[in-house]
Amino acid sequence: MTVRSRTRDALIETAGTLFWRQGYGATSLTEILSQAGVTGGSLYYFFRRKEDLLLAILDRRLEDLDLQIFVPVEAAEADPIERVFGVLGFYRAFLESTQCEMGCPIGNLALELADLHPEVRQKLAQVFDAWCSRVRKYLEDARSQLPHDVDLEGLAQFVLTVMEGGLMQARTARRLEPFDAGVTNLRRYFDALQVSARSEDRRS
Amino acid sequence: MTVRSRTRDALIETAGTLFWRQGYGATSLTEILSQAGVTGGSLYYFFRRKEDLLLAILDRRLEDLDLQIFVPVEAAEADPIERVFGVLGFYRAFLESTQCEMGCPIGNLALELADLHPEVRQKLAQVFDAWCSRVRKYLEDARSQLPHDVDLEGLAQFVLTVMEGGLMQARTARRLEPFDAGVTNLRRYFDALQVSARSEDRRS
Repeated sequence: MTVRSRTRDALIETAGTLFWRQGYGATSLTEILSQAGVTGGSLYYFFRRKEDLLLAILDRRLEDLDLQIFVPVEAAEADPIERVFGVLGFYRAFLESTQCEMGCPIGNLALELADLHPEVRQKLAQVFDAWCSRVRKYLEDARSQLPHDVDLEGLAQFVLTVMEGGLMQARTARRLEPFDAGVTNLRRYFDALQVSARSEDRRS
Repeated sequence: MTVRSRTRDALIETAGTLFWRQGYGATSLTEILSQAGVTGGSLYYFFRRKEDLLLAILDRRLEDLDLQIFVPVEAAEADPIERVFGVLGFYRAFLESTQCEMGCPIGNLALELADLHPEVRQKLAQVFDAWCSRVRKYLEDARSQLPHDVDLEGLAQFVLTVMEGGLMQARTARRLEPFDAGVTNLRRYFDALQVSARSEDRRS
């Protein structure tokens, strides 16, 4: 890695964590420069606007989804439905390790920024889509365990809904219970879907 | 209403909408004053800090929950489970009428601000709790239609999760589908819970 790309990397890492923890609006460029140990000139060399830095962070998050979440979950779980819950377990472990302080880096920015930054909004939507596609793939692998009329795209979005809605409440209340309540109810829902698929099989 | 309380009211209304639409950090006091037609001196008279204005807005949102959401839903629906879906229908209608632009005024602030403003975070948690309590009340009214081992507190939090997670995705993607997918799956889940409660009844 060249000095140049290390500097760019440090900016993305530092700003990514600051935006995640305290929000985009509340993070000043001065704070980013001071924490990353980078000069204003270097920042401006890589990113003309604060928004360009944010877009680079979101590209990084998109690239990291696989390596940080999906690959480890798939290594740990072979069953496709357990992979869905493995992904939720990943977020729970993160919530727990941060005392429910940080939430989801995408969800936080989605609700802070959606209306003012169209380009950012599209990139955030792209990360959500990539997340849902991978979960949808698990659901396709579990197709025979689910009733025929279940829309897998909608069910994948529902899994993301449960993750994001639970994270939001857990972060606001600073406790895991609302997240856990989501997972408990989602598990019960999947159990019911599987029971219903088995009774379809018996009828056919 | 006195001139004084009208001024305070205008500040709460104007800032409430601006924070909702564009976020707390992205809204300047200058913008609030100009839109509300109020002088800086009046603002300072009522609210010493921007955060005090935000806290007053959240108090107002808490007061308005009943009148704006729950009372109309209860007038329209007698069945307690339909009341749960009536509440979700209220948010859907709002999403639709704003072309999915604004999302939830509480959820947006929860994810923008949770980490930096402890007092605000507690007030946001209080609004979520009030929302869940009312939904929990509907679930208690539907107790005989739900399996005995379902935790109603957790189920009420799950309904809020479905609302907030769906709103987040709908706002980010600027389309209703992710919200609708949440409601469709939640309805299917409630149907399964009701089927399971009926089979408990037959066994007992």
